[in-house]
Order: sequence, then C-alpha cells, then structure tokens
Amino acid sequence: MRNNKKIAFIPFCFALLLLFLFTRQALAADLLPSWNDGKTKQSIIEFVAKVTKAGLPDFVPVAERIATFDNDGTLWAEQPMYFQFLFALDRVKALAPQHPEWQDKEPFASLLKGDVKGALAGGERAMVEIVMATHAGMTTEEFEKIVKDWVATAKHPKFKRPYTECVYQPMLELLAYLRAKGFKTFIVSGGGIEFMRPWTERVYGIPPEQVIGSSIKTKFEMRDGKPVLVRLPELNFIDDKTGKPVGINEHIGRRPVAAFGNSDGDQQMLEWTQAGPGARLMMLVHHDDAVREFAYGAESKIGTFSDGLMAEAKKNGWTVISMKNDWKRIFAWEQ
Amino acid sequence: MRNNKKIAFIPFCFALLLLFLFTRQALAADLLPSWNDGKTKQSIIEFVAKVTKAGLPDFVPVAERIATFDNDGTLWAEQPMYFQFLFALDRVKALAPQHPEWQDKEPFASLLKGDVKGALAGGERAMVEIVMATHAGMTTEEFEKIVKDWVATAKHPKFKRPYTECVYQPMLELLAYLRAKGFKTFIVSGGGIEFMRPWTERVYGIPPEQVIGSSIKTKFEMRDGKPVLVRLPELNFIDDKTGKPVGINEHIGRRPVAAFGNSDGDQQMLEWTQAGPGARLMMLVHHDDAVREFAYGAESKIGTFSDGLMAEAKKNGWTVISMKNDWKRIFAWEQ
Repeated sequence: MRNNKKIAFIPFCFALLLLFLFTRQALAADLLPSWNDGKTKQSIIEFVAKVTKAGLPDFVPVAERIATFDNDGTLWAEQPMYFQFLFALDRVKALAPQHPEWQDKEPFASLLKGDVKGALAGGERAMVEIVMATHAGMTTEEFEKIVKDWVATAKHPKFKRPYTECVYQPMLELLAYLRAKGFKTFIVSGGGIEFMRPWTERVYGIPPEQVIGSSIKTKFEMRDGKPVLVRLPELNFIDDKTGKPVGINEHIGRRPVAAFGNSDGDQQMLEWTQAGPGARLMMLVHHDDAVREFAYGAESKIGTFSDGLMAEAKKNGWTVISMKNDWKRIFAWEQ
Repeated sequence: MRNNKKIAFIPFCFALLLLFLFTRQALAADLLPSWNDGKTKQSIIEFVAKVTKAGLPDFVPVAERIATFDNDGTLWAEQPMYFQFLFALDRVKALAPQHPEWQDKEPFASLLKGDVKGALAGGERAMVEIVMATHAGMTTEEFEKIVKDWVATAKHPKFKRPYTECVYQPMLELLAYLRAKGFKTFIVSGGGIEFMRPWTERVYGIPPEQVIGSSIKTKFEMRDGKPVLVRLPELNFIDDKTGKPVGINEHIGRRPVAAFGNSDGDQQMLEWTQAGPGARLMMLVHHDDAVREFAYGAESKIGTFSDGLMAEAKKNGWTVISMKNDWKRIFAWEQ
C-alpha cells in the first residue's frame, strides 16, 4: 500500500509541475496576445523569467531593469516616409508665405513644387536646412504646441489614419508586459526628442523623461520678464548608430538589459546592451509583411535593415522578429 | 433637548476638525523630523498638500510631480572645497608619475607642490585643464570604478568623515517626503554627471537616470571586439546658471513644480520652475551656521549666495532656508 502511494505520488507531482508550467505560460501568453506562439515569443518570456526571479543567477534588481526601444520602424510605421519628415514638409508649406525667398532657394523651391526627390538631391545639407527652417526659431513651448496640433490631424499616407494609431500592437503589449515585470521602458530614437515627447506618454505610456532622441541646441532667455527656452538652428546631438550608446549613457547612465530596434542605426545600441554581464535580450523587427504593412530591407533608403545587420544578428544571437510570422496582428484596428 | 443637541454638535465638529488638522500636521511633521517648526517647514507642507489633493485647483497629477535639487551646498557640503575638486587634486597626484612633464607645467606644477591658489591663478583655463587631465582618457566603466574607489575612502577636511556622510539630514528627509507624495526627485548640478551617478542612488535614493550634470563628450569604440565609451577631453555641457533649465528640458522634458538650490548658479532653475502655472515651490538653502557647518555668502568664491540672489528670492517670494534656524540637525551623525 505504502509503496503504491509513493509510486502514485510521482506522476501526481509531475502533473502538478506540468499544470504549473502550463499556467505560467498561459498567463504570460495572455499579456502578449498579438504575438503568435513560437520561438520569438518564447525568447521574450524566457528572458523575463530569468531576470525577474530572485535567486536565479541572472536576476536583475528592479532599479536596473532598463529596456530601450527605437521608435521609427520599431514601435510605429516608418514607411513610406518618416512621420517627422512629413511634419517638416507640412511646416515648409505653412511657413512659405513668410519666406518668399524659398521660391527660388533649394531645397525649399523643389519641396514647394511637391518634388521631394529633387529637394533631397542636396543630401544631408538639404535635410539639415529643412530641419532647421522648420524646427528652430521658436520657444520649446511653442514647438510643443505646433507638434501637438499637427499630430492631432496628420494622417499616414497608406493607412489613412493618424500616425499615433499606426503603432504596432504587439510592441505596445511588450512595453506593458515589461513594465508589469518592473522594467523602465525608454525610447532611444534618431528622431527629434522634442518631436516625440508631446505624444509618447499618451501613445506608449512612456513619459518625456524616458525619451532620448536627436536634438538641436536651446538657449535660456528672459522675454517680458518670463523665462523661455529658444530653439536654435544648431545641431546638438544625433541619436543614431554610435550615438545611441552615447545617448543612453548620457540620459540613463545605466546599461540596458534589453534593447529593441529595426535598422542599422540600432546595431550599436544592441551591441552595447549585449556587452553587459548576465542574460540580455536583443531583438530586431524585420519588415517582411507587404500585405499588412511594408516589406523592405537593404534597398530601402530609410529604415535600413541591411544584409550586414542580418549577419550581425545571426552572429550575435539576436532575435529577429518576423512581422509576417510572429505577429498575429500588427495594428490595433486590424480584424 | 433637540436644540441643545444641535448646539452641542457644533463644538463637537469643531473639535473633530481640530483633531484632524492637528493629526495631519503631526503626521507630516514626523516625515520631516530634522526641520524646526516654523514658516519654512510650513511652506513645504502647505505646498505638498495643495498639489497632491485631487479636486484642489493646484492639483498636479503624479506623472508631472517633478522636483529638482542642486547638489553641492544644497544636498551636501561644498565648503571648504567642492568634493569633485578634491577628487581632481588627488587624481593629479596619482597620475603624476605617468606625467613627468607636469613638474614644470602649470597648473599641475603648482598643484603638485600643494599650491592650489597658484594653480587656479590660471582661471577657467587652468580649471578645464585639470578636469580634462583627470576626468578624460578612460572608458566610462573605468571612470566609474575610479570614482567609487575614491569616494569610499576620501574624507571631508573639516568633518573627517566620508563626504557621502556629509549630506544634509533635513534634505534627505525632504527627498523621501516628496517621493512618498508621488514626486520624482532629480539632481540638477553643475558637478560632473558621471562623478555623481556612482553614489547618488545609495546616498540619496536617486537613480542615475534622474541625475543631470555637467559632462564631457564620449565616443563609442570597439576594443578587442567589446564596445566601450571613451571619455574625451572635450566639454559637452555645463549644467550651471542658464544651463540648468536647458539641462532640465533636455533630460526631463517637463518643467519642475519644485526646485531647490543654494547659489547664484540655481537662479535660472528657480525662475524656470516658477514660470509654470499653478502652485510652485522654490527654496534656497542659506549657509548661515558657522558652528555646525559653514557660514558664507557673496564673499565666498564658490557656492555663492550673492546679495543679488537674496534680493531675487525676496522679490519672487522664494523661501530661504536658514540652516541655523530651520534645521534641528544638519548631519545624521550629530547628537
């Protein structure tokens, strides 16, 4: 009798263990409902389990649970054009009446004729001129209002919806999942820091102090006895490629344990993240879904996911997210 | 009978109200035990009550409860010398064997003879040379270790204790009190951001991502296949005077509702804080206690609280903290 009981006890424990594992898995899965089951989703859940369970060798205290996310192409759509570039184009049009000289001056003349390609023929210098003409010359408060007003009405050219609805539902779930597990989530984007801050809290739940981006210089001034910060037409920081670890160090002062990107501009951020001790999670969103979103890679001028990056990902063991295969749905408004 | 009951009810309510107010006051007071009762302490408690009670006109949502603190002279002692300057002097001595040329080169030659005044005769340029020679040329990780090792052993020249024990107990209580009320507390200091971060979490409970300071440039590099950030001998940002609102905007992207300083270098931070809508709290620590700490003002070369600043404080309604009168004790190790 006693022996029989003992023998029966083993499968009972085994069943309990299975039930426990299954429940944990099911609970975790519930927090990522837009992710298809598979290796990619599994790598997220396994990483989080490793670093959040006290006693495990890879445990990371809450204060050190830093996760960084690129924005364009990682959290929201970046094709057929960066949203911030659309903003700049609209601003050129809005400001044109105050700048009659733009009619004969590149890159503005081409832009005003609707010839974006012609305007960008001037390369990086043309780009900087467009940015400075549209992003500088006002106070930080004035700029915030301009961005807010514009973001409220501008729409994505393909999806015909506000850009703030063209955010990836699986990534929203991932942000919320990580935060539920004690992570602090940061944006680390090549985009303008003050272009993102007016809406990141509402859209991603990421407050302005957790947004890192490119910036122009500002200057403190007293205007009619009131202090203002004036945006100057002078580059301050480019938060891209090798700039991303620099920006992370400057703003966070702590190495991330997880980093998410989608282009060559994110490679150094992922390298920097991986170089720390213990378990790390590095992921790249691959745009391979022409039907539901876009499919692009090395041939694309923006949002480049080059063959070199894919080789790096393989070599370093980074997880590549296939939008087509790993995401049940891409946008919240999909069926 | 009924009328009598009604009449008795009024003093009863009044007594209840008094009890309630007294209890609230007593509870709040308990969180600031090193502050003497009086106008200064009262201004803190009243401000916090105004901005944290839902329904009141000055209510501030938790996400917007940002409080910024200067460090040197506001959270810890800055006399007779900035701690970071002592660090630089010790580093010059430690590095001298690798720099035989310093024996004949100012400002190093004077420093190595113990003549600080002579070294600083070279003004700002001498200062920058000392900073670059001691703060640049290593990776961020190496620098962090140098700072940690030094901070663990170096002592304050007057108090003969580690500098990290020369922090103001009333300010530690204020930091904790504000955090308990939903505030995010930031350091906004003219000191080096990477000099502070290795110890602010332990000493003040302020994590590295909530530390803003002056900085030199860093550069991402691969060394033996490992990514590092190398500290370059080039100024990046001076977080002082008009630089403080600029640094706050860059790192936080949100205007503080409370700001604490102690010198002319903090004036613009307080102006910037005050210029927002609703209730605001601006405070300046005044060093007027020669017995327990130091007494200094306009005549002092560092940590200047000029007559002009005192006039600004009066004009703008900022609260001046008298260390002598408002603080029951200054350091935790006092009786």
